[in-house]
Amino acid sequence: MTTSDSPLVLTSREPRGLVTLTLNRPDAFNALSEALMSALQHELDVLATDDSVSVVVIAAAGKAFCAGHDLREMCAQPSDSYYQALFKQCARLMMSIQKFPVPVIARVQGVATAAGCQLVAMCDLAVAASNARFAVSGVNLGLFCSTPGVALSRNLGRKAAFEMLVTGEFINAQKALAEGLVNRVAEPDRLDAELARLVDNILAKPRAAITLGKSLFYRQLENGIEAAYLDAAQTMACNMMDNSALEGVQAFIEKRPPNWQRAEPTSQS
Amino acid sequence: MTTSDSPLVLTSREPRGLVTLTLNRPDAFNALSEALMSALQHELDVLATDDSVSVVVIAAAGKAFCAGHDLREMCAQPSDSYYQALFKQCARLMMSIQKFPVPVIARVQGVATAAGCQLVAMCDLAVAASNARFAVSGVNLGLFCSTPGVALSRNLGRKAAFEMLVTGEFINAQKALAEGLVNRVAEPDRLDAELARLVDNILAKPRAAITLGKSLFYRQLENGIEAAYLDAAQTMACNMMDNSALEGVQAFIEKRPPNWQRAEPTSQS
Amino acid sequence: MTTSDSPLVLTSREPRGLVTLTLNRPDAFNALSEALMSALQHELDVLATDDSVSVVVIAAAGKAFCAGHDLREMCAQPSDSYYQALFKQCARLMMSIQKFPVPVIARVQGVATAAGCQLVAMCDLAVAASNARFAVSGVNLGLFCSTPGVALSRNLGRKAAFEMLVTGEFINAQKALAEGLVNRVAEPDRLDAELARLVDNILAKPRAAITLGKSLFYRQLENGIEAAYLDAAQTMACNMMDNSALEGVQAFIEKRPPNWQRAEPTSQS
Repeated sequence: MTTSDSPLVLTSREPRGLVTLTLNRPDAFNALSEALMSALQHELDVLATDDSVSVVVIAAAGKAFCAGHDLREMCAQPSDSYYQALFKQCARLMMSIQKFPVPVIARVQGVATAAGCQLVAMCDLAVAASNARFAVSGVNLGLFCSTPGVALSRNLGRKAAFEMLVTGEFINAQKALAEGLVNRVAEPDRLDAELARLVDNILAKPRAAITLGKSLFYRQLENGIEAAYLDAAQTMACNMMDNSALEGVQAFIEKRPPNWQRAEPTSQS
Repeated sequence: MTTSDSPLVLTSREPRGLVTLTLNRPDAFNALSEALMSALQHELDVLATDDSVSVVVIAAAGKAFCAGHDLREMCAQPSDSYYQALFKQCARLMMSIQKFPVPVIARVQGVATAAGCQLVAMCDLAVAASNARFAVSGVNLGLFCSTPGVALSRNLGRKAAFEMLVTGEFINAQKALAEGLVNRVAEPDRLDAELARLVDNILAKPRAAITLGKSLFYRQLENGIEAAYLDAAQTMACNMMDNSALEGVQAFIEKRPPNWQRAEPTSQS
Repeated sequence: MTTSDSPLVLTSREPRGLVTLTLNRPDAFNALSEALMSALQHELDVLATDDSVSVVVIAAAGKAFCAGHDLREMCAQPSDSYYQALFKQCARLMMSIQKFPVPVIARVQGVATAAGCQLVAMCDLAVAASNARFAVSGVNLGLFCSTPGVALSRNLGRKAAFEMLVTGEFINAQKALAEGLVNRVAEPDRLDAELARLVDNILAKPRAAITLGKSLFYRQLENGIEAAYLDAAQTMACNMMDNSALEGVQAFIEKRPPNWQRAEPTSQS
């Protein structure tokens, strides 16, 4: 799926649990070809089962974050069954981010358009350079960004999302911040420092709490509030029985730092 | 339903696909009498089946956008069955906007209160004059704006919507913009220019993409994210098989403007 | 549950229908011990059946609003069944606020963390001092704020809520206002005046409209928009048949203040 001399996704790992996946088709503005989507899916699938991973960053090589689908490839095979399979592949990839056990953070520079904007919307968190710009611009070509709209309308208000979808116009990083599409904006030369602050913060937490919490967060959003509370109350009780929580709370009471090296991320029974 | 010398809704059409419906009871602040609601419902029903319409603007004559229900009329017939029918008629009218095949844009000047505020909230997009003011003020009379609340709570955050509903207080145009009730605010003498920018932008898109997209947008909002993605992926595949999308994407690759005059808005098989 | 010399919840009533419940464990930053939760639950249960109550304010004694669960108590009994019961008790308490017949307003000074932040999120409205700070900081101890997340994610945008939950970081009052967690922010010495403006506003409305409206507001949020409109239309018809609404609308038409002393809060048949 990826060639050894020019992999479509660059994977870099830090011992403390951070993995950075870098979209690596800079000359094509990191357009999501089938091969690139497959490579990213493969990385996420492998990492999802790896308990040593605590944060994933999705970054991009070159001037742009991601320009959406690979239109040249899309035009080469105009059949309904091909498109059905293509958009399902993309939707599955996007859902893998939400289902990923630990936080996935988008690191955005330059343009993020169509499925590239969707990628930002689907990440749990996003940090953008002040020169980043976002659009769901398929409508300019006659192709309404329907699947990106699923993600966008779960980040932005209804009217703001609809406006982006029918006009195809760009919003800048500040507007994206105000609307809820990204969490933080930094000058380009401060982008990695801002990202690191967020990553370091999450890495300092026990992984067990984060995985329980992320999963519950998206699950409860799909339910009515009574069902959401029942689920959340059970999740919290379960969380409290984990050694890391017991140690964390005990340490807080004793006014000392928690000793999470000692605590194993397994359930106490 | 409308008299020929003073229609309750003025309809103006432009050949390029824009229809403007103007609420025309300026002396009554365009209060939604049964007759006015019927007239607006009738226009929307007719236009919904007209493929030459690409954008609808809901505007209002006089100083106010719309002051809500016609209270004098409402008081004349105080019976439960009458009110049941009245509020159902209004709800059906409001849903017709969301179900309308192409975007409906509110053009708001002056006050938009109660069902008038609801009308703004239900439109896909809204452009407001800087002197526009919005309230769901029924509670001031002892009549909680329950049906407007359905629309309002799908535009604004929960606490902001609740505050407007229980206090009945006005918010100004800037606050409405910040909260997500309108998309754009302009000085009164720039309102039509701002509206035209938005309309022109949408008219430049292929109608087939817009209709597929609008319908999907509201449909997927009602579903869980997995079901939403399945629906959206199918919608996008269907969209790609339309001549206008194939031509649009091909033109983009060939770095030329799309020739949508040639492309018919029918499905390729 | 409460001792007479130092009740855990102070209850003060004003004849016009305002009840203020003050969390009264200032030395423990009003941490929600089981006893405090039970006392607050008891007060809400009693007040919920009292038709003379029109607004409830939840306030807090001392420097902090509420620091969440009582961690010392939580550590004393580390068993799954205990935690299940504890978090269910808390969720039930929180839902009592949403189910409470009239508006519940949080009056927030200092820190509101974990379940304390949840308490703010669950109130219908919130007024905060400019020095108030909000965090769902359980994750810092290894205990993800899952139940607070249910409330938080129904106030804030998805990414903003997720960020607070995984970082445990504080946001200040201005940020809380911008994100939708509170309705109004005031300088500490202006906090009670700002709160009074909001309370007075609501007390001036007929109680029947407020109770019908609040109940409908949360009910319809859980449903699709078609079902929401059906419910809301019936609720509004029912509301219109109440004497206070008939009098309010009639008074508006006659350009006189409504005479709600005369109108009884019962249904006309």
